[in-house]
Amino acid sequence: MPQPLTILLVDDNGLRSSIIEEGLREAGYGNVSVVTTVAGLVKRIEMLEPDVIVVDLENPNRDQLEHFFQVSRVVKRPMAMFVDRSDTAEIEAAIEAGVSAYVVDGLKKERIKPILEMAISRFNAVSRLSRELAEARSELAERKTIDRAKGILMKAKKLDEAGAYKLLRRTAMNENRRIGEVAASLVSAYTLLGDD
Amino acid sequence: MPQPLTILLVDDNGLRSSIIEEGLREAGYGNVSVVTTVAGLVKRIEMLEPDVIVVDLENPNRDQLEHFFQVSRVVKRPMAMFVDRSDTAEIEAAIEAGVSAYVVDGLKKERIKPILEMAISRFNAVSRLSRELAEARSELAERKTIDRAKGILMKAKKLDEAGAYKLLRRTAMNENRRIGEVAASLVSAYTLLGDD
Repeated sequence: MPQPLTILLVDDNGLRSSIIEEGLREAGYGNVSVVTTVAGLVKRIEMLEPDVIVVDLENPNRDQLEHFFQVSRVVKRPMAMFVDRSDTAEIEAAIEAGVSAYVVDGLKKERIKPILEMAISRFNAVSRLSRELAEARSELAERKTIDRAKGILMKAKKLDEAGAYKLLRRTAMNENRRIGEVAASLVSAYTLLGDD
Repeated sequence: MPQPLTILLVDDNGLRSSIIEEGLREAGYGNVSVVTTVAGLVKRIEMLEPDVIVVDLENPNRDQLEHFFQVSRVVKRPMAMFVDRSDTAEIEAAIEAGVSAYVVDGLKKERIKPILEMAISRFNAVSRLSRELAEARSELAERKTIDRAKGILMKAKKLDEAGAYKLLRRTAMNENRRIGEVAASLVSAYTLLGDD
């Protein structure tokens, strides 16, 4: 039995929507909300917090596609899209927007379950990679800022490196802030004052 | 017209293989090599350097799947896999192994082209993210090593931070090595000597 997922289905085509709903029901997914219009979609997603968003567009034009790609970028949730045709540029745009499954000409109800599982797995894998990248970059930026702040203190206060670091750390403790924040404030103030 | 891609198709089922080959031909992909056995596959891939590897497995057992997932991890190229059925664990394992398109029960010739384009786009997106992560982590590690090396020099040679950095940089220039390498050698030697 699949875990009870909350699913939001966006579909304005009754026949195709019923194919997808049947596939979801047969796969054991009971918690499905259906919307037929894109108006207010982001707000709806934020309220429902679905585990996966299924978008069926049959034969969308580029503007409609771009609208959903934009939703994908904003809501940061697994999204599986079904379209009947798509060109190379649209496929690339879908990937770039983080669409987790972009299925061209592949709608049939037996496929719904593996495609949703795929979308969720892929979303999680890409999210993990993105998060690790953000953490590494943030740590690197913080380290650079702390180094800059130490350099400023060493010059301004005639301290050695260890003394500068101690001063930063003590200030952070006193102000109940992270050392990176104290360093960033110092670098910012120093840049403002232009004493470089 | 699609660009001339080099494609390696791995398929031991004549009928399904001909469906895929027809889809490739109709999509304008002429440069297709077909292998029917997995023996020596990695070597074959390294020689051919295909832009994308297409694997068709119909109804594989877990060992066969795992073999291809292993190939995917090793060759680091876009791989599109077609299987007729798959469970949640297999889907997750495919994603984890970096398989760029894992298509369950979705083989028809009209779909070959968008699936290959998707596989290549997705592979490029994930590769870029992975490369950026590796770079950020390597820069962070190097910065930590340089900081450690500076600390060692400041203590051993009674230098200030700037003096320690200058010494590292001068040594790197003299030895025609990167400053990170010189720092790593110093940290390594210091650890070996145990003078901590």
